[in-house]
Amino acid sequence: MNRDSLKALIDGIACGAVSREKAFERLSSLDYEDLGFARLDHHRALRTGVPVVVFCQGKSDSQIIDIFTALAEKEEFVIGTRLSPEVHGRISPELPEHGYSPEAKVVWRGEAPRVEEGFVAVLSAGTADIPVAEEAACVCSLLGSRVKTFFDVGIAGIHRLLSIVPEISGASCIVAAAGMEGTLPGVVAGLVPCPVIALPVSVGYGTGLSGFSALFTMLNSCAAGMSVVNIDNGFGAGYMAHKINSANRKESD
Amino acid sequence: MNRDSLKALIDGIACGAVSREKAFERLSSLDYEDLGFARLDHHRALRTGVPVVVFCQGKSDSQIIDIFTALAEKEEFVIGTRLSPEVHGRISPELPEHGYSPEAKVVWRGEAPRVEEGFVAVLSAGTADIPVAEEAACVCSLLGSRVKTFFDVGIAGIHRLLSIVPEISGASCIVAAAGMEGTLPGVVAGLVPCPVIALPVSVGYGTGLSGFSALFTMLNSCAAGMSVVNIDNGFGAGYMAHKINSANRKESD
Amino acid sequence: MNRDSLKALIDGIACGAVSREKAFERLSSLDYEDLGFARLDHHRALRTGVPVVVFCQGKSDSQIIDIFTALAEKEEFVIGTRLSPEVHGRISPELPEHGYSPEAKVVWRGEAPRVEEGFVAVLSAGTADIPVAEEAACVCSLLGSRVKTFFDVGIAGIHRLLSIVPEISGASCIVAAAGMEGTLPGVVAGLVPCPVIALPVSVGYGTGLSGFSALFTMLNSCAAGMSVVNIDNGFGAGYMAHKINSANRKESD
Amino acid sequence: MNRDSLKALIDGIACGAVSREKAFERLSSLDYEDLGFARLDHHRALRTGVPVVVFCQGKSDSQIIDIFTALAEKEEFVIGTRLSPEVHGRISPELPEHGYSPEAKVVWRGEAPRVEEGFVAVLSAGTADIPVAEEAACVCSLLGSRVKTFFDVGIAGIHRLLSIVPEISGASCIVAAAGMEGTLPGVVAGLVPCPVIALPVSVGYGTGLSGFSALFTMLNSCAAGMSVVNIDNGFGAGYMAHKINSANRKESD
Amino acid sequence: MNRDSLKALIDGIACGAVSREKAFERLSSLDYEDLGFARLDHHRALRTGVPVVVFCQGKSDSQIIDIFTALAEKEEFVIGTRLSPEVHGRISPELPEHGYSPEAKVVWRGEAPRVEEGFVAVLSAGTADIPVAEEAACVCSLLGSRVKTFFDVGIAGIHRLLSIVPEISGASCIVAAAGMEGTLPGVVAGLVPCPVIALPVSVGYGTGLSGFSALFTMLNSCAAGMSVVNIDNGFGAGYMAHKINSANRKESD
Amino acid sequence: MNRDSLKALIDGIACGAVSREKAFERLSSLDYEDLGFARLDHHRALRTGVPVVVFCQGKSDSQIIDIFTALAEKEEFVIGTRLSPEVHGRISPELPEHGYSPEAKVVWRGEAPRVEEGFVAVLSAGTADIPVAEEAACVCSLLGSRVKTFFDVGIAGIHRLLSIVPEISGASCIVAAAGMEGTLPGVVAGLVPCPVIALPVSVGYGTGLSGFSALFTMLNSCAAGMSVVNIDNGFGAGYMAHKINSANRKESD
Amino acid sequence: MNRDSLKALIDGIACGAVSREKAFERLSSLDYEDLGFARLDHHRALRTGVPVVVFCQGKSDSQIIDIFTALAEKEEFVIGTRLSPEVHGRISPELPEHGYSPEAKVVWRGEAPRVEEGFVAVLSAGTADIPVAEEAACVCSLLGSRVKTFFDVGIAGIHRLLSIVPEISGASCIVAAAGMEGTLPGVVAGLVPCPVIALPVSVGYGTGLSGFSALFTMLNSCAAGMSVVNIDNGFGAGYMAHKINSANRKESD
Amino acid sequence: MNRDSLKALIDGIACGAVSREKAFERLSSLDYEDLGFARLDHHRALRTGVPVVVFCQGKSDSQIIDIFTALAEKEEFVIGTRLSPEVHGRISPELPEHGYSPEAKVVWRGEAPRVEEGFVAVLSAGTADIPVAEEAACVCSLLGSRVKTFFDVGIAGIHRLLSIVPEISGASCIVAAAGMEGTLPGVVAGLVPCPVIALPVSVGYGTGLSGFSALFTMLNSCAAGMSVVNIDNGFGAGYMAHKINSANRKESD
Repeated sequence: MNRDSLKALIDGIACGAVSREKAFERLSSLDYEDLGFARLDHHRALRTGVPVVVFCQGKSDSQIIDIFTALAEKEEFVIGTRLSPEVHGRISPELPEHGYSPEAKVVWRGEAPRVEEGFVAVLSAGTADIPVAEEAACVCSLLGSRVKTFFDVGIAGIHRLLSIVPEISGASCIVAAAGMEGTLPGVVAGLVPCPVIALPVSVGYGTGLSGFSALFTMLNSCAAGMSVVNIDNGFGAGYMAHKINSANRKESD
Repeated sequence: MNRDSLKALIDGIACGAVSREKAFERLSSLDYEDLGFARLDHHRALRTGVPVVVFCQGKSDSQIIDIFTALAEKEEFVIGTRLSPEVHGRISPELPEHGYSPEAKVVWRGEAPRVEEGFVAVLSAGTADIPVAEEAACVCSLLGSRVKTFFDVGIAGIHRLLSIVPEISGASCIVAAAGMEGTLPGVVAGLVPCPVIALPVSVGYGTGLSGFSALFTMLNSCAAGMSVVNIDNGFGAGYMAHKINSANRKESD
Repeated sequence: MNRDSLKALIDGIACGAVSREKAFERLSSLDYEDLGFARLDHHRALRTGVPVVVFCQGKSDSQIIDIFTALAEKEEFVIGTRLSPEVHGRISPELPEHGYSPEAKVVWRGEAPRVEEGFVAVLSAGTADIPVAEEAACVCSLLGSRVKTFFDVGIAGIHRLLSIVPEISGASCIVAAAGMEGTLPGVVAGLVPCPVIALPVSVGYGTGLSGFSALFTMLNSCAAGMSVVNIDNGFGAGYMAHKINSANRKESD
Repeated sequence: MNRDSLKALIDGIACGAVSREKAFERLSSLDYEDLGFARLDHHRALRTGVPVVVFCQGKSDSQIIDIFTALAEKEEFVIGTRLSPEVHGRISPELPEHGYSPEAKVVWRGEAPRVEEGFVAVLSAGTADIPVAEEAACVCSLLGSRVKTFFDVGIAGIHRLLSIVPEISGASCIVAAAGMEGTLPGVVAGLVPCPVIALPVSVGYGTGLSGFSALFTMLNSCAAGMSVVNIDNGFGAGYMAHKINSANRKESD
Repeated sequence: MNRDSLKALIDGIACGAVSREKAFERLSSLDYEDLGFARLDHHRALRTGVPVVVFCQGKSDSQIIDIFTALAEKEEFVIGTRLSPEVHGRISPELPEHGYSPEAKVVWRGEAPRVEEGFVAVLSAGTADIPVAEEAACVCSLLGSRVKTFFDVGIAGIHRLLSIVPEISGASCIVAAAGMEGTLPGVVAGLVPCPVIALPVSVGYGTGLSGFSALFTMLNSCAAGMSVVNIDNGFGAGYMAHKINSANRKESD
Repeated sequence: MNRDSLKALIDGIACGAVSREKAFERLSSLDYEDLGFARLDHHRALRTGVPVVVFCQGKSDSQIIDIFTALAEKEEFVIGTRLSPEVHGRISPELPEHGYSPEAKVVWRGEAPRVEEGFVAVLSAGTADIPVAEEAACVCSLLGSRVKTFFDVGIAGIHRLLSIVPEISGASCIVAAAGMEGTLPGVVAGLVPCPVIALPVSVGYGTGLSGFSALFTMLNSCAAGMSVVNIDNGFGAGYMAHKINSANRKESD
Repeated sequence: MNRDSLKALIDGIACGAVSREKAFERLSSLDYEDLGFARLDHHRALRTGVPVVVFCQGKSDSQIIDIFTALAEKEEFVIGTRLSPEVHGRISPELPEHGYSPEAKVVWRGEAPRVEEGFVAVLSAGTADIPVAEEAACVCSLLGSRVKTFFDVGIAGIHRLLSIVPEISGASCIVAAAGMEGTLPGVVAGLVPCPVIALPVSVGYGTGLSGFSALFTMLNSCAAGMSVVNIDNGFGAGYMAHKINSANRKESD
Repeated sequence: MNRDSLKALIDGIACGAVSREKAFERLSSLDYEDLGFARLDHHRALRTGVPVVVFCQGKSDSQIIDIFTALAEKEEFVIGTRLSPEVHGRISPELPEHGYSPEAKVVWRGEAPRVEEGFVAVLSAGTADIPVAEEAACVCSLLGSRVKTFFDVGIAGIHRLLSIVPEISGASCIVAAAGMEGTLPGVVAGLVPCPVIALPVSVGYGTGLSGFSALFTMLNSCAAGMSVVNIDNGFGAGYMAHKINSANRKESD
């Protein structure tokens, strides 16, 4: 239910078109669908501007199939993350109209309106950070933003980064993924004018602490114009980057 | 040095107007000023679009005075954070043209160009979170964004939050400050279309872990469209919010 | 607003007594009072059955006075916690009709209905745990429950505990406060039939970890019928104990 | 041994029916059965009002069979938790009169008296939290309470929760299971009058810290009337909820 | 009550000298004294062989005076730890027959029987570890053991340690106190035949983690014949060392 | 080399029987055997009174065989710990005269002199703690002490523990193994006169923190006469208990 | 690009041999090769004096092959670490001129100039620390330093260490690898005149904390002349040791 | 005692010039002086090449005076660290021939031989890191190395660092001090050929974790040729840097 339908409902009560019982039921409950093990939030797009996104990891094959099948009936655009190639191989026959990226482990159905201007740059510090960076890039792209990727530009050889600064400086937003000591995003944020989303990756060993060392480096960074998402949360970074890339453009729509 | 002056320098070398020694010196060193204990970065505004910001905490009175005095000669707009009222009381005679907000502990000189459209909403979950929220609001406003504040809207009484949703939904970006369990930003992000900057606050006791419990809550939030800054980093949140609020508006400039 | 007034509002819309604009305003906003730095939640009692409780620590003298003064006008019963004797000494002239317990650091105004049957037993493992146990006992008593206290009954001399088992076994609920290794609540829960609220206390040194060692002991306890509140959260323990003591008695009211 | 049999024993000593040696033995030792690797506590029901509950995880097949066989001879009602379907498949022929729930991983034999009035509501924030919530619901139901379950009502789409508030407000006690950032229980506790048992779940990744982030969120919650059990401890939550649901009803028995 | 008096009680019941009511009261409660804020355990010496020890830190002056005054009436030998010289200066007039060591911060009254044979060696790694080592040495000596101290024998100059090995090898037990990296006890345990009590000290900075680094070093030590007490727990180390020094000597008494 | 042979060496130098080169070599190097990957310490028994103990976990089959074969030639008594039944099955043909306990995962060759008097009591809190307790019991027994075991005596049903207090009070030393919240050793130490070795076990889940919760409980225990070994270090506990049991008995040998 | 080629470039611009466009491109980008998933840093040797080192763990077989193949074309000397024997078995046919050490898990191609004087001593505390020590020794040797290894010289039998002190005292640098409590490096640093690189190893259990206990011991060591690398980072230790061994020798080259 | 005097002693025994008793005493004990609370290690210079260094923090005024007075009699060169200006002000009259640096908080007496060639570069990332960097620079210089300092060259404005790369590339060793996210040392190590000592500083707030975030960043750094010392351990960094700067120069002495 969006704000217009709320006003319509009030009009309906006032003019008698909507009974009091009905009104009470509608007003105390918003629209969703109960599958027993999941309640699908069919009006999220109206509320937050972006469709339902399903976190597939930890759900059974049949739960995933049921959720996407139910969503397919009511939603025009759906995204699922953390769907491994193994699971996708087993369930893809049940989801005939869905696309899938094995690098990003993302599944989707339908298409979002494109943001025509601007682009998001997605960087990875090393080769091992690429899968998480790919999730960010894929989600951001599916949501409608143009995306350019730059992999293995970590600061151990800082000239690799400096050489791409001119290009990434033109982005609306940068996602910088890094594991180990997680230095990349802070260095980038000190060199470019656009906001930077720091994406810590659970790559490393010992004091890498499964990504916590990278996370804390990013949170502590002295460079301003940067904020951070959860470890390995490529989805969250890509989603936030799309929001920033599409921000303040509504008037041109 | 910005990109144009780099090109001018190359032209100068090619046409002989700049000697080789001078070129080598300029190319291997960018512009800053060395005070001995601090190196002032006079071209940050050209590089990242925002002026130098001085973190005053932990610096001596005379260091602060020297830094602001040196900056005042070359920079048109300067911000300093974490300047306690006690220190400000002692040094304000030496910094005659600087403004100061005791709530936000922010000092500044000069003025930034205003972003005419849009606004940033700054929320605090409780009363104790207000000082950090004020730092975010003050910095964001000084940088040029319009700011509206909404304090004590935490979810213990969720109707307090729901009642302001219509108003904050119109923001370009929301900063949500919360200590203790830090739930506010995630709930907000599930209700509004704009990006949310989560700002954990070191308020609480016991398992509050000086803000870490709030920080982890925010990083883990299932709600998308949110990213996080360091504990008590009101400056970082306000800066990021301004970047988002001013994003993609260049064409109207 | 309670459920009856919601129904009345709907009736009012239907019969025209309430304008559409008014209805929209009322429905999208529940009742609270905005002091600028705090939003007082005047219908909490209707919603959760217990009045507003003010956490005084970290608030300025004038904020505390303003909050209690505002609450005094609309609420019949108010509790404030963590009000130190020093602060109380300064502000008590401004809060003329309020009671105060220096042991529990609790302030209050008005009176709750009494729960006539049953009682809550509040135990402390050692002498140093008493202040937190007193907060629990005081809050629980103010909310309307009868309370009996048993201090210094920790298990280093387990006969001290065994000798009170017959008496505490008759309680509706037991609050057991302990610092250091925090063993008391688990031992109690293995000996009595009633639910036990474990209250970790930040007493100790070294591996006591400011109460975390006690907290984890309590969460890990093999004894069933026990749940845990935050470190030093005497208020939360006393509140929960009162809820359990008054549970399922509504019919006799 | 209960209090009556203790009095009978003393009478027996006084009248000579019980020899001094026998008395010394009885008084220094209460009743249990030693299987070598386990000591079965046959009078727990008399002491705490609830039967022995066996934690099956980490025990060998033959240990589990021996324990349940020994219990079956002396106890009328027994519960076992964390019995995986694999192990149950292997040992079920040896435990012919025992029921089993594969969702909750709970095994039982016999039946508890029913609590006729009231009910316990068990909520899960997401789909992945359901197995732990099922353990809570199953244990609570076996102990004699009526249970209603509400799954996938987390706050990312808060209207899903608001729509069930009227129904769950009528519960005697609510168990709220949540992983990731663990916000659900605190939001629920701010909306309902009954006590809430917060049940953190080890679902998530990165800063989820295997359930610790949810645990700390719950312990820190500003909402009162809530207490917390160990991560993934569905048994403990269900047991505590039953104790609260059956509290203060003795007189009607 | 000791085992003999328990047998006497049973005889008293059997022969009618003790009434049934009296028997019930005695059997369900052992002997202690309730001061309101503390319950004094007057039969600990009978049970564990060592008198009551009072932890003074965190208790008020009047609580300390009341406890020692009450103990002085019933106990022949009492020890108090963590009594700072400041507090001792204020309360010593009220405790006229008590001894005090300002280095060890230990107060006592009365005298324990001496263990004539053997001795305990107390080592400190550095100068800063001496206060904690002194607490261990003082307590151990008061309990009746002979004690020799060896300070500043840490392994940074390992010849300082090697030169005392012949002498400390003759001890019945060694207490080794160390902060920072806490290496001393493990090296000692690899060189001597007697048991070693490792005593971590909260001396250091940075990764010293207030004694945790020393604690973990000691727990991990590959050298056998060593066990560990809490950080800064000189009392616990001295007490344990006395127990070991006096072990297996009963026959000579 | 023991102290006598050191004196003989000096005599040899003085009388010319030992050349200067030989003296220099002997004095700067004590006796051990270098296998390349391991250096066997053949004079440990002389130095610390107990033979070499081999930690088998993490060593290859051939390394274990080589070490035990080399030790068999020079040592009369050897112990190996953490040798899994799988590895033992593969290598036992190569170690023909070695005994093995699959419960304790301990292998040995030869025999230690027996301590005729006294005994060590080894307790486990639950069934899952038995393997670690068995390691302690097996090592302690092999070293020469008499051992009695008492399993599943945790405090959830405290009468199970109270009933064995009379028997364990006669021990020279008690080892108490416990996982989860680790309460058992502290309760035991408050009830018996002998020293207690607390042995934390990595049994549990969630806040059990793989044994750290038990470890911290034990280190924090208010009960005196107790010290602690590393998590799951049954060997260390058994070794320390034997040292205490055999302490101060030399004169009777 | 090295400093000479930078000067040549400037000369080229000045004399017109290099076009302005070319100059801009060269000056804003240094030399590397982009494989899509990796950017090879072909001038690292010129910049830091040591060739590219590839961290193979976490890369796919084909990524490793592509990287080494590309490096083989442009680099004369390459090292790869953490290449397991399994992976090496699969890919070795594709890397025909590469050497491999299965103990150190290191692969290489080409040869470094030898440092003729001095040597590096690599020590391991136990047998389980050898693989990490081997990585350090192999890398250090490949880079050109002479290396001597001394395994199983931990301080549990300190004479094993003392006997090698004369020999290792002659080293230019010592690498000391240790797990568990990590004491070895600090003891060594107190005995020798050369710098010591402490190398913590993730060997141990319980409070070993996967190498963190060893790491903190090393960082806290009171012995000076020591610094520390990441847990299990044999490569980093060997590389640093080579840098120290080859330091200040340039003039003799 | 150095190696020559050991050989002389053996000669003395062989030729009868040294009695057997004397030999035994000398061989089992090396040279130190016992002040009761401290044992001064008078032969450390012979053993490790560097004099005794006294850690003054945590020692009483009189202990510091006694230690330096005793050292002055036997040692030609002594250093003390962490001596605050307040303490120095009180004790300086007692230490007449000692130098003192208030910035570095270092006291010294005597002079070390100078290392004529090479230099050590000491960098600080920010202004707040200067005191710790000064300690490193002062110690390194006192030990005999030439030192150059470069303050406030952190990577937030990376051109400040790049401009000094040519100069610091000529150092024998670099010490890089940084707090907050601690990125500086890793970036430096990727740009220079000499070894880098990373020095984490406890500057920052929130997730800075009192220097642990910087420490972990440094340990995780992908850049090779770097090792790390304890948080705030300027002394250790300066000492190690001097050892590296003076390494392999012996032949020129």
